[in-house]
Amino acid sequence: MDLTLDAARLTALLVDTASVSGAEKPLADAVEAALRRLPHLAVDRDGDAVVARTRLGRAERVVLAGHIDTVPVAGNVPSRLDGTYEDGVLWGCGTSDMKAGVAVQLRIAATVPAPNRDLTFVFYDNEEVDAARNGLRRLAERHPDWLAGDFAVLLEPSDGEIEGGCQGTLRVVLRTEGERAHSARSWLGANAVHAAAPALARLAAYEPRHAVIDGLEYREGLNAVRVSGGVAGNVVPDVCEVTVNFRYAPDRSEEQATAFVREYFDGCGIAEITVEDSSPGALPGLAHPAAAAFTAAVGGTPRPKYGWTDVARFAALGVPAVNYGPGDPNYAHKRDEHVRTARIHHCEERLRAWLTA
Amino acid sequence: MDLTLDAARLTALLVDTASVSGAEKPLADAVEAALRRLPHLAVDRDGDAVVARTRLGRAERVVLAGHIDTVPVAGNVPSRLDGTYEDGVLWGCGTSDMKAGVAVQLRIAATVPAPNRDLTFVFYDNEEVDAARNGLRRLAERHPDWLAGDFAVLLEPSDGEIEGGCQGTLRVVLRTEGERAHSARSWLGANAVHAAAPALARLAAYEPRHAVIDGLEYREGLNAVRVSGGVAGNVVPDVCEVTVNFRYAPDRSEEQATAFVREYFDGCGIAEITVEDSSPGALPGLAHPAAAAFTAAVGGTPRPKYGWTDVARFAALGVPAVNYGPGDPNYAHKRDEHVRTARIHHCEERLRAWLTA
Repeated sequence: MDLTLDAARLTALLVDTASVSGAEKPLADAVEAALRRLPHLAVDRDGDAVVARTRLGRAERVVLAGHIDTVPVAGNVPSRLDGTYEDGVLWGCGTSDMKAGVAVQLRIAATVPAPNRDLTFVFYDNEEVDAARNGLRRLAERHPDWLAGDFAVLLEPSDGEIEGGCQGTLRVVLRTEGERAHSARSWLGANAVHAAAPALARLAAYEPRHAVIDGLEYREGLNAVRVSGGVAGNVVPDVCEVTVNFRYAPDRSEEQATAFVREYFDGCGIAEITVEDSSPGALPGLAHPAAAAFTAAVGGTPRPKYGWTDVARFAALGVPAVNYGPGDPNYAHKRDEHVRTARIHHCEERLRAWLTA
Repeated sequence: MDLTLDAARLTALLVDTASVSGAEKPLADAVEAALRRLPHLAVDRDGDAVVARTRLGRAERVVLAGHIDTVPVAGNVPSRLDGTYEDGVLWGCGTSDMKAGVAVQLRIAATVPAPNRDLTFVFYDNEEVDAARNGLRRLAERHPDWLAGDFAVLLEPSDGEIEGGCQGTLRVVLRTEGERAHSARSWLGANAVHAAAPALARLAAYEPRHAVIDGLEYREGLNAVRVSGGVAGNVVPDVCEVTVNFRYAPDRSEEQATAFVREYFDGCGIAEITVEDSSPGALPGLAHPAAAAFTAAVGGTPRPKYGWTDVARFAALGVPAVNYGPGDPNYAHKRDEHVRTARIHHCEERLRAWLTA
């Protein structure tokens, strides 16, 4: 892999080396080999994740991270260029999500041997599949020291805008209980589905909180994502379950989010509330000096990230993190996935400006 | 099959000839052969259903009906007697539901050659399984003339009490609609599960109507028997369905019942109401002269039947019908199913009194 290529040509090369989740090895091997040829970097590997670090003893350390896997190819490999590599459109699986970002990482790794902050480059596998297989999660468990830093940038597609932090997500099951009876003699039972009415009414009445953190406005949400109850067409149901998903601003902890939900349904006649899934949010950390310098260098107005993303894995390690990458997220995972090559160059240039100022 | 046996001994014989639904043929053959030996009866057969009729030209015709199948045997065949056939307890599969009743039918058929009303004896198959296989349903479709009459008694277990008519049952699906969205950006969608709150609240507020018909007090019921909605743990659901079962007194027609339900949910934001299942009720018809004579002969206070039963098939043919049989319904379908032999004799005696007075 020739890291003297410009970032757009390098993106094309990366796309042409298909790396669907679980089949990243050839690409991970190529990335590792290319990085090992760079004398200013110390390279580590775990499975198909590769981590390369400068060891310059700078006051701050910044992490640039990206996943090297893609969703399954959909007749869109090899890549195809419209126009020029300088100012055209590159089509293909992973162009946006997120080989353009990976190309920028590799270019910075190759061309900024003496950055103003120590750098850690993380290339990881299996982001597009079950969280249990996620390569960044594995690194955080096995080698948290490899991910240490003061600030992290994930080069996920964000259309060239900074997306700060991410909201937390909590999923609970509200259970109402009754007593079974034949529906022809329903007065002998108690209907658990009817008993769910107050909880659904309270959900319908929910007013979302907006929280401004580091200048970013997060929007919370509380939604039933599933409801189920029923035994048979002639039986009064004795159990009803409403699964509720709470998306919350990162100024709440997991514990606070859970307490909020429990309190919110007070008096609704819920027999039991069970936590089914919980992932804390991530603070944007834009007040950190490294982040402030980053936003100044990149320009534009940072936006809040509503969905849960891998930045939260950095936040859990105490590293504030943002998404910032050249791809357009609207085209991620699509057959007509593409990236504007000028965006790739712009992203590389902004990061270089930040890290060499 | 020896129809000179008393009804309790005959019940034991019927139980010992196992006849689980779908395997009634040996018993149907035996019943048919025994009836054909009785010169005062004209016998017809359809599948494993046997119908025998007097043709005396009486002013009224009465139907005595029973199913000859049972639920699966559960180690409770052959039958076992505690005490005497005159005043004991007979144990075994079908003793209560409903071979004791069938034995009474056969005894009346054999021993009342010149009843005061013309008699039709119906012995049918597959009552304990899907309605689609029900032998009485088949007869009603293929040979409605075989079932003609002024009044019908089903000898289903009713603990020696008259259970009049039956309530109707209507099952509808209430559908609420919304718009899908990622739950992290829920304000872009509309939650169909939340939209079900008004319908559930209205169900919870339902006040049942009590209707007195021919002196019997029916109790209606309106219940959610199922609720379902949900796409995935991170998606705002766009559809929610609440299945509602309305059990209604037999003074409402199917159409009136459907209209009631549609109107009941007016203003609840239901996008669509679909009828999934509908079976009309059956009026008790106790005011009919034959029925009045029957209740006078049997004694006791008739009770309303809440659950839907095969009496409604007679009602649909214009024949008022009641349940009246010697078994105890609490032991139907149970491993410890049994019948008190004195009840069998009492039932036979009461029917004979009615038909020979």
